[in-house]
Amino acid sequence: MTYTVLDKSSIPEYLNGLPKVVEVLGKGSSLDIEEIGDGNLNYVYKIRRSDSPDRSVVLKQAVPYLRMAGEDWPLSRNRMTYEIRALQAYNELVPEYVPAIYHSDEEMSVLVMKNLDEHTVVRHSMIRGIMFPDIGHDIGTFLADTLFKTSALGMGSIERRHLMDQFTLNDELCKLTEDFIFTFPFMEHDSNYSNPVTDEFARANLRCDTEYKLGILKFKDLFLTKTDALLHADLHTGSLMANSDETYVIDMEFAFFGPFGFDIGKIIANFLMCYTSHYYHSADDSYQSWLLDEAMNIWKRFEARFVELWGAQGESAMLVEGFLTEDELHEYKKRFMLNIFHDSLGFCACSLARRTLGIAGVADIRDIEDTEKRSRLEIINLELSRLLLSKHEEIDTIEQFESTLQDFYKNVNQSTLELEK
Amino acid sequence: MTYTVLDKSSIPEYLNGLPKVVEVLGKGSSLDIEEIGDGNLNYVYKIRRSDSPDRSVVLKQAVPYLRMAGEDWPLSRNRMTYEIRALQAYNELVPEYVPAIYHSDEEMSVLVMKNLDEHTVVRHSMIRGIMFPDIGHDIGTFLADTLFKTSALGMGSIERRHLMDQFTLNDELCKLTEDFIFTFPFMEHDSNYSNPVTDEFARANLRCDTEYKLGILKFKDLFLTKTDALLHADLHTGSLMANSDETYVIDMEFAFFGPFGFDIGKIIANFLMCYTSHYYHSADDSYQSWLLDEAMNIWKRFEARFVELWGAQGESAMLVEGFLTEDELHEYKKRFMLNIFHDSLGFCACSLARRTLGIAGVADIRDIEDTEKRSRLEIINLELSRLLLSKHEEIDTIEQFESTLQDFYKNVNQSTLELEK
Repeated sequence: MTYTVLDKSSIPEYLNGLPKVVEVLGKGSSLDIEEIGDGNLNYVYKIRRSDSPDRSVVLKQAVPYLRMAGEDWPLSRNRMTYEIRALQAYNELVPEYVPAIYHSDEEMSVLVMKNLDEHTVVRHSMIRGIMFPDIGHDIGTFLADTLFKTSALGMGSIERRHLMDQFTLNDELCKLTEDFIFTFPFMEHDSNYSNPVTDEFARANLRCDTEYKLGILKFKDLFLTKTDALLHADLHTGSLMANSDETYVIDMEFAFFGPFGFDIGKIIANFLMCYTSHYYHSADDSYQSWLLDEAMNIWKRFEARFVELWGAQGESAMLVEGFLTEDELHEYKKRFMLNIFHDSLGFCACSLARRTLGIAGVADIRDIEDTEKRSRLEIINLELSRLLLSKHEEIDTIEQFESTLQDFYKNVNQSTLELEK
Repeated sequence: MTYTVLDKSSIPEYLNGLPKVVEVLGKGSSLDIEEIGDGNLNYVYKIRRSDSPDRSVVLKQAVPYLRMAGEDWPLSRNRMTYEIRALQAYNELVPEYVPAIYHSDEEMSVLVMKNLDEHTVVRHSMIRGIMFPDIGHDIGTFLADTLFKTSALGMGSIERRHLMDQFTLNDELCKLTEDFIFTFPFMEHDSNYSNPVTDEFARANLRCDTEYKLGILKFKDLFLTKTDALLHADLHTGSLMANSDETYVIDMEFAFFGPFGFDIGKIIANFLMCYTSHYYHSADDSYQSWLLDEAMNIWKRFEARFVELWGAQGESAMLVEGFLTEDELHEYKKRFMLNIFHDSLGFCACSLARRTLGIAGVADIRDIEDTEKRSRLEIINLELSRLLLSKHEEIDTIEQFESTLQDFYKNVNQSTLELEK
């Protein structure tokens, strides 16, 4: 269908022509359409059958400009093409962790999908101290299944190149990440967030530290040139919707083939920044303990599941029968997982700093109005970023990572950085 | 133009419709058409103006099967699509080192290009002991210009993704490399070359060596998942045509975005195998000395030219103004080049072994009829492969590489491996 922008008046007729949507909503009844927006980029509508509101779908459409800024701020609607392709791939790979698709149309830049009405955005819930009992496990499973199954270990070479080919041209959003995650936060740049105390710390401790900056470039290089697997590429706690039973991953418009550690490091960084924010949000450390446990569970489950999938895998682009003995394969797996772990710690370090210094902060911290308290938390992020980047090749196990974090936070507690409520 | 297979009777009319070809050949005269073949894959014709034989072109067309095996052996003619795209890219990047294109047609799988009549295939000439005074310098320049200018250091992110997109689906030929360079030679496989003495050495020294095999997998991983730059991806001495003044690179149908070190390591390996073959082909070591000098010149020129291009480069996907200080940039360049060097040594090691054990040998050695002498040379290749793979991260400079090779070959000379003529 040729591209037209849908609105409340044209949506009913559009949906009526889509058999799988009609299956969900039924036919003929009037529809209640609510524009909810995801804030910035796209139009998002919740659509319910008026006489039966539990029958509902979500419709998402990209427009060829930045929705929040208006038509004067052009932005290719290609982004929806990649969200559609990634969500289709994920519906094959991990159907239990992503919304079911009822309809997609690259020409129209439209997705119609399951309405996640009984789930909340994890970031907002975590700021409020809500616990999700399975979240670390779910994220770890999502990561293992998506990364393993799209890697050279989990696919044949030729089919893998064809999948990769669907994402190579997600160019604008890749460039956004290159600029706003791996570049601008680490230099003086107009786009950066500004807070004098935090800026001063960054200037004195990060932006003049050669090893730190060359470390950032190492990970920027991997982001630009390593095609390990299909990444979500924007996996933070705002891209998760969950309740006590289920976890869903959404908003995958940044998807492309990139390095293994990127999604893992980024989501763990978001748990750690939430941990830090609870020096402010919580009265005691019970929620922080839970957050740390779940952050560790992400890796533990990821590793166990990745190795499990590998064990069940036949030949792949990387390995054929008879190339390695059992002992050699065992050793290879050990080194392979260690390498992913080290890279994940490095990407975690990048993410901690960019969310602190760059344009896009985390609400967990940036929404705190008291500038002084906010600065203290921001400096914790930066200290942790520096620690992890400098040690990312020395921390070899999740237990060492956990004790490194515990030691780090113990020092935080004992220092002047502890916040009085 | 819709695909049809050209032959001697249809070529004149086809060429007559192509303005740039008419410019070279003139119009109206009869043409002498000679099928020369490049042996295996494609039809190749030399076409001369009968009344003026110095006016000539080469026409190359792929057929949808393996030419040497006939129509029963299907092979996608896509390979010509990638040869056309790579030759077009190289005509922009390094016009002095590749044949000029007079016409290309992806639909027809046809290339019409400059006839390299005054040049010989370097492999054959080197077996005969011919020296090409500038060859190391020329190859080094070709490598630096093609690799730098298509890397994230030499392009913007978005234009780079669009160039990469032209090569992602060169899937069949990438898979051939994965199988025949990085896999089969290192295991028992029906496709491998067989020579009992050499096989025995491989079995006892390489195929049971865990570190060696995991080393091979490290480089296979890079080949599968690292997109540093546009590679020729089949750069051996049979892909070079030269005379004492000029060097041309041909046959780039394997081109894709891969790791920096692959082309470099492969071409150096071919010089080293030629060196080894001259224990047999030469009466003394004078040609070997020249070969070693030129092999070292490849890297020396590559490094100098790569750094020169970098110095002249403005912003790129990787680096923006103000990110690094001058001192930091200096340090970054040093590490960057060292990393390419280490990887080149690793790929060189892979190439030495696969050309010895795999289906595709080098004529320099494999055409030697005396099995015993051939075996000795093959074992030298394998010893060198093992040495370089185990030391590829310890050899940090071209001078260390040269002295490592000199020591290695000195031992060869002193051992029973020296061949009497």
